[in-house]
Amino acid sequence: MTRTSDTSFNDTPATPYAFVDLDTVERNIGKMARKLADHQLSHRPHIKTHKTLRLASMQLAAGAVGITVAKLAEAETFAELGIDDILIAFAIVGERNLERLERLHNRIRVSVTVDSWEAAQGLSAVGVRSGKPIRVLIELDGGLHRGGRQPGQDIVDFAVQLRELPGIQIEGIMAYFGLIYRSGNPDAIAADVQNESETIGRVVADLRQAGIAVNTVSSGSTPTAKLCEYAAGVTEVRAGNYIFNDVSAVQMGLAEEADCALRVAATVVSMPLPGMATIDAGTKALTSDRAHHGDGFGIVVGRPDITVAALNEEHGMLRFDPGKVKLSIGDRIEIIPNHSCVIPNLNDYIYGVRGGDVTERIKVDARGRNY
Amino acid sequence: MTRTSDTSFNDTPATPYAFVDLDTVERNIGKMARKLADHQLSHRPHIKTHKTLRLASMQLAAGAVGITVAKLAEAETFAELGIDDILIAFAIVGERNLERLERLHNRIRVSVTVDSWEAAQGLSAVGVRSGKPIRVLIELDGGLHRGGRQPGQDIVDFAVQLRELPGIQIEGIMAYFGLIYRSGNPDAIAADVQNESETIGRVVADLRQAGIAVNTVSSGSTPTAKLCEYAAGVTEVRAGNYIFNDVSAVQMGLAEEADCALRVAATVVSMPLPGMATIDAGTKALTSDRAHHGDGFGIVVGRPDITVAALNEEHGMLRFDPGKVKLSIGDRIEIIPNHSCVIPNLNDYIYGVRGGDVTERIKVDARGRNY
Repeated sequence: MTRTSDTSFNDTPATPYAFVDLDTVERNIGKMARKLADHQLSHRPHIKTHKTLRLASMQLAAGAVGITVAKLAEAETFAELGIDDILIAFAIVGERNLERLERLHNRIRVSVTVDSWEAAQGLSAVGVRSGKPIRVLIELDGGLHRGGRQPGQDIVDFAVQLRELPGIQIEGIMAYFGLIYRSGNPDAIAADVQNESETIGRVVADLRQAGIAVNTVSSGSTPTAKLCEYAAGVTEVRAGNYIFNDVSAVQMGLAEEADCALRVAATVVSMPLPGMATIDAGTKALTSDRAHHGDGFGIVVGRPDITVAALNEEHGMLRFDPGKVKLSIGDRIEIIPNHSCVIPNLNDYIYGVRGGDVTERIKVDARGRNY
Repeated sequence: MTRTSDTSFNDTPATPYAFVDLDTVERNIGKMARKLADHQLSHRPHIKTHKTLRLASMQLAAGAVGITVAKLAEAETFAELGIDDILIAFAIVGERNLERLERLHNRIRVSVTVDSWEAAQGLSAVGVRSGKPIRVLIELDGGLHRGGRQPGQDIVDFAVQLRELPGIQIEGIMAYFGLIYRSGNPDAIAADVQNESETIGRVVADLRQAGIAVNTVSSGSTPTAKLCEYAAGVTEVRAGNYIFNDVSAVQMGLAEEADCALRVAATVVSMPLPGMATIDAGTKALTSDRAHHGDGFGIVVGRPDITVAALNEEHGMLRFDPGKVKLSIGDRIEIIPNHSCVIPNLNDYIYGVRGGDVTERIKVDARGRNY
């Protein structure tokens, strides 16, 4: 595989910059790999979180069976970099995109999700054209209503129709139960995972009764994967966020601050009034994403008495009790972002850190490849 | 100047992609240039909005006296591309950044804002080292409390202290009255502009009384510039958003939909339930930014009966009345973003459109240069 990280750069990054603690990343990957292996679950991590070959390679080395991507451009990037087993968990629509899929299909092992007759006909044409069937996972709506067939007769009817199309090989189903992020603690999440498991169990039974082979059942987010002892019937999870964790994961009780590998370094540049300080990181470094179940725009590491109260594009506004907190212009702080999955996409490079020192510069290979 | 746009690309962009209607951009630039000239106001547009030489060149050709940037990396990029008069409207803090500033200062006409003694001492050292003083604008806190000295004695005392530092040439003041975006209609905004004008008038009078020369009074956002008939005492505005406009501008009554030059093209990829459709543009194309005074995540052009109800990273969720709206998988829609200033930063290229056809590919020269 191409190497897309370098340790030869000789420049300290200027703030704001995003960095990952590589020891924490390794610990997060190892812990997840062991847990999923213990439960006989395959892992196909979603790489939208990091978009880098460097970290995908670590996930594959730890036992991941392949990767998941959302967009064709991510698949194209990672195929180019040597990854040869990719699930595109997104509907492929339009002739232009079908041509792109065909090129990938002729080159690597690619699977795609499908949830509409319109998209299915396109995939069928590609499968016929290329002389080998396209592997598809039928998308099941996990309750978020952003895509997928409905549990019950709807998904069965669709599968039966789909089976008749030439050029398509049904591998199984794919679901995303994204509502799990609305649950604020491990007990509620465990109940969500059980519900996910039961819904999937019924759907798979219905499909099998209709004569549809279901070899792969791909489901699960990071919360599902972290509580996979409550999952049954799933064969593969796509957890992605776990590699970094973030404020949402902390607020949901799924991670400690020390498990949060991705951080943004920033510098205090102004202190206009007592109890107020401004840093050089705004939405272009941290995004406007809010945390599930949390206020503010990130956790200031080691400074629980400082809040990131607001962000403009290039400014972050800190608030604190001036009687208790000492802060000066020029101070460097580190912020755990609300939502780590959107940070690498903002950067050409993120920096790898060990023991507090920047040791490598990691190219964000698929930055901006969201089409 | 280097050319950073090309008309020779021969590929239709895959959705989602951001594009600008160049006729609308020209109209927006021309209208603003005429209005500011009528009121004897210089224009130094903030290029954080578009981050491209292509559009900055159009603004300069229309009479802009130079550009404003927020970050050193933006200044470095545009200096490299041939722009030689740049205001960095951001505090420069830390030795590393002072060295970067010195290189720029030795090469082009650069001005910087300052609001702290710590930063002032650094600037002074650079001015002394380089043998020519650094031009500074003292930042006045316009009420947002993200930086700046307070009106009254605070800014006067700071200016008097600053004047004693070697290597510094005080040009005047810089203010940003960002609270103006909290006002929801032109009447309220006009009152804000009058308030901005009065505050600035008092500060400038105080400074002059203390013997501080104030040649440049840089203030004003796009709303201020659009209602500059209510401004007095300001010599230069930094309006940036006006070149594109966005949902906030529409909601504030400062622009019509037809004045919104920047749009994101997206494709309907799934229709999981009646009244629901999913597009391939999520926060990585549109950001999570909310509009001032508006709901949803963008305006669907020509489809007022469709709302962009929610965004995930790569999915946008449309909601509509299925009895009234016809929408199909594969349909292409165009979205006016809530906040146009954050969109080019997500893309390597934005596309130039005339009469509905993509005619050029514009490099986002300073994409990601937020440090």
